[in-house]
Amino acid sequence: MGRVTARRPVVRIDLAGDTRRRADTLAVEEPLEIRVDGSPLTVTMRTPGHDHELVHGLLRSEGVISGREDVVSARYCIGTVTDEDGFERNTYNVLEVALTTRARGLPVSAQRSLVMHSGCGLCGKTSVDAVAASLPEGAPVVADITVDPAVLVTMPETLRAGQRVFERTGGTHAAGLFTPSGECLVVREDVGRHNAVDKVLGWAVMQERRTAGLVLVVSSRASFEIVQKAAMSGVPVLATVSAPSDLAVAAADELGVTVAGFVRGRSLNVYAHGHRIASSP
Amino acid sequence: MGRVTARRPVVRIDLAGDTRRRADTLAVEEPLEIRVDGSPLTVTMRTPGHDHELVHGLLRSEGVISGREDVVSARYCIGTVTDEDGFERNTYNVLEVALTTRARGLPVSAQRSLVMHSGCGLCGKTSVDAVAASLPEGAPVVADITVDPAVLVTMPETLRAGQRVFERTGGTHAAGLFTPSGECLVVREDVGRHNAVDKVLGWAVMQERRTAGLVLVVSSRASFEIVQKAAMSGVPVLATVSAPSDLAVAAADELGVTVAGFVRGRSLNVYAHGHRIASSP
Repeated sequence: MGRVTARRPVVRIDLAGDTRRRADTLAVEEPLEIRVDGSPLTVTMRTPGHDHELVHGLLRSEGVISGREDVVSARYCIGTVTDEDGFERNTYNVLEVALTTRARGLPVSAQRSLVMHSGCGLCGKTSVDAVAASLPEGAPVVADITVDPAVLVTMPETLRAGQRVFERTGGTHAAGLFTPSGECLVVREDVGRHNAVDKVLGWAVMQERRTAGLVLVVSSRASFEIVQKAAMSGVPVLATVSAPSDLAVAAADELGVTVAGFVRGRSLNVYAHGHRIASSP
Repeated sequence: MGRVTARRPVVRIDLAGDTRRRADTLAVEEPLEIRVDGSPLTVTMRTPGHDHELVHGLLRSEGVISGREDVVSARYCIGTVTDEDGFERNTYNVLEVALTTRARGLPVSAQRSLVMHSGCGLCGKTSVDAVAASLPEGAPVVADITVDPAVLVTMPETLRAGQRVFERTGGTHAAGLFTPSGECLVVREDVGRHNAVDKVLGWAVMQERRTAGLVLVVSSRASFEIVQKAAMSGVPVLATVSAPSDLAVAAADELGVTVAGFVRGRSLNVYAHGHRIASSP
């Protein structure tokens, strides 16, 4: 298992005149190559740790698998590198996944590329349509849950409290899954915000925990890709402390995902499918 | 030219009891497909605007071109889509680039993949070595500039003041190029932080402005990829208001790039090649 943080010497310059050399803790970033049935699928720059979750989440987000049962095995291909100081050390940066025959479909992003290359009409709508066509149930997310705004605003604070790596480095994004009553089920951190989301969704896949009744909370902006991941996992509510993009909202509208943004302190904005956010009587 | 921001209805919920429907401004996110000599190179989700700069910067960052003269032409392939309300509109989301024969090399990321697939020794060092082997001068950045820390800390504030889209949306990252004396030459914003960096570096390519004496300032965290882009363009100093990753610092060490992080208020951290940051006598 790779390191999650690393210590580095840093020179701290204070304009008041104080310059000190000290050690600083940084978030580790390493490439992870994912191979599916012997072929390279992708390389992502990620913070090591929970790599199996990351891969399960990514494969689910891309529509390659629909559950844990589609994965026959997922194993590190352990390599060795020689460090600057001449020592050999193992690397855990290649994950080999074997799928059941049933699961060997094209990932959504590949399908999206195919759609894109078929003509010049490329636009946000093309991207949304490609995801819509790949939804596991073939239909938008319809899960019937209600979240009280007073509960929703507590979730980013809970997420923040669970960000152990951010606490030490200031360098990671986080994602978490919550029940509508505000219970935090899992928090994952990563230098890449899409990786943090894949890790929590992959956690649910590996735990065989249904995500249809849960809230996905992210510490970062909500892009199209984050909404895609929520929709592919059937997550009905996405909440962020920051802004969604225009395409994220357009995708959420079409894919049936509720999007709340600027969830901070005592207020929030609802951008799509607001019927799931309502005060308890 | 595509839109940069869009208006969407939003429900603003304040726990004090005030719930209002209003219009909110969001940053636009659209796919941009880049085709080089007829073949698709990549699709990036970006905020429309300055697409030619984005493409020039990306091709330079990937080591495909070394300057403007390597690009024979770059033209939109204009498509049409039908909006929800039945109107056809043009899309400007495909850019066709034609290169000189000289420039038709493999992009760095493809080379990196080749290195990665050749064995199991995949690690951060492999990634750094692949970039090092592709540096335009074949050597680390050696530009001999000095930046006063008192000037450096003003740059993020100047960048922030130039973030027109962020001001309205809270949803974009920014990058800027500065002279060592603190003059801001260009600011670009994008939903993707790598795109914002490609846009400012591409601006320099298109302006035929040497970047060897400049400072790259980013509003976001500094990852390996951002350091790669700085190094490939010969930018000697990278400054961020946030944290670098461990691999970003390792890459900067090896590639000759100065990295300053947490450049906020009256202080900063220097992580690599600190000799370029020194007070004026």
